[in-house]
Amino acid sequence: MSIRRLCPEMLISIWGRNEKSLDEIRAKGLADAVTIHPEEAVAGADLVLFSTPVDVMEGLAVSIAPHLENHAVITDAGSVKSTVVEKLTGVLGNRFVGAHPMAGSERSGLGAAKADLFSGAPCILTPLTTSDPLAVEIVTAFWSSLGSVISVMTPAQHDRMAARLSHLPHVLAYSLVNLAARTLPEGVSILSGGSYRDATRVALSNPGLWTGILMENRAEVAAAVHDMASGLSSIAAMLEKGDAQSLLDLLTQAKNHRDSMPAYLSRPST
Amino acid sequence: MSIRRLCPEMLISIWGRNEKSLDEIRAKGLADAVTIHPEEAVAGADLVLFSTPVDVMEGLAVSIAPHLENHAVITDAGSVKSTVVEKLTGVLGNRFVGAHPMAGSERSGLGAAKADLFSGAPCILTPLTTSDPLAVEIVTAFWSSLGSVISVMTPAQHDRMAARLSHLPHVLAYSLVNLAARTLPEGVSILSGGSYRDATRVALSNPGLWTGILMENRAEVAAAVHDMASGLSSIAAMLEKGDAQSLLDLLTQAKNHRDSMPAYLSRPST
Repeated sequence: MSIRRLCPEMLISIWGRNEKSLDEIRAKGLADAVTIHPEEAVAGADLVLFSTPVDVMEGLAVSIAPHLENHAVITDAGSVKSTVVEKLTGVLGNRFVGAHPMAGSERSGLGAAKADLFSGAPCILTPLTTSDPLAVEIVTAFWSSLGSVISVMTPAQHDRMAARLSHLPHVLAYSLVNLAARTLPEGVSILSGGSYRDATRVALSNPGLWTGILMENRAEVAAAVHDMASGLSSIAAMLEKGDAQSLLDLLTQAKNHRDSMPAYLSRPST
Repeated sequence: MSIRRLCPEMLISIWGRNEKSLDEIRAKGLADAVTIHPEEAVAGADLVLFSTPVDVMEGLAVSIAPHLENHAVITDAGSVKSTVVEKLTGVLGNRFVGAHPMAGSERSGLGAAKADLFSGAPCILTPLTTSDPLAVEIVTAFWSSLGSVISVMTPAQHDRMAARLSHLPHVLAYSLVNLAARTLPEGVSILSGGSYRDATRVALSNPGLWTGILMENRAEVAAAVHDMASGLSSIAAMLEKGDAQSLLDLLTQAKNHRDSMPAYLSRPST
């Protein structure tokens, strides 16, 4: 939808596994061609975008590689970069340039699509020193044309950051829901206020998709999860000791950091 | 604002520490009287509402007790009930009926006030078996008239629930912000997506207010925080072992629970 609206000159060919979803895409005029055969989708393509769970990208890359144009540039929208960039560069070569648009929500499917999804949202590119410079330029222009605000970093820097700013919040959301379900009477979550509701929104995300993301970035996510658990144990100790001053210091420090984030980040997503 | 709009026949007398805030309230016509003297505010009052940090309620109760009408009914809007109910019942007697309206946001002050704040929001009442039945009836009618959906439970049940559905999410929000600030390059949180933004919204809450809440409910909060830390350690172990199936099971279980919450709880707060 974003490409249709913002890059109306592009011809769009969409691959999907599900004929019914493809029919819906066709009916809405969102593609010039749809197919369940990946090699058909990439035939003649100048630019190929992987928008699938991260753990199936390598297999898909293997199946399309022989059918790509020589000049084809490839990018992706995966939430993990180190493993994805390594695998896809291995299969597709230096015209692959990894990307992670920090947009989207817990919802999935065509019903959750929004043409302005990328507008003003960060998009992190992770080119390698060996990446083809023209491919980097094309991929940068592509994501920019959708309204993304581009940042560039290494795959490792991305994964360290994403573990703490995205993957850990998802782990916390799923864990918090399970904790409440395990320890409280059934149905009591209807009495929750906004803090629980917002903290657990992303537990509505697709579990298979997120198992893939967490596993593909598991070293960084495990480190962040350990770090969080250890911070929580310190807080529990402050509570048990009645150490109000240390707790106040910790909360004040956090509020100061959060206050310094740009104001638009204070608004909940819609 | 809610009382003004929904109970226009009530005469409202407001106590506050700050003359400037009181002037603003007066200028907006939100009260019939304002004062910095608590004993003046309660003189002649049929109903008294404590809307202050939980850790200052007892002192305030002591200062107003001699000035209350014999028939005065007292309630509060505090986020903790066991200690508050015990202390305020001790000072004020059995016409005190504890309440926790599960509304509000990370914002504070008159600028954050909304007349429809309580509309459709849960309000938990925690009367004791020794509470005056007429007082319970009046407090129930009062919170209902503001649009609250009333639930009744014991102070202990409330505190166990609030620890997991409200206090723990706040602890997680503050901790997550500190973790990101400690481990990532400065300013990088601008690259976060919606999951971090929503998970940390309540870290914008007043640290002093929240230190008081967490300390007043510290046994239950410490238990919930320990439980969370232990759940996180299990997840870290799954990641380290590459145990995708256990992780998928855990995420699927959480999603099923979260899916079963009423749909309006899926919407972020505004």
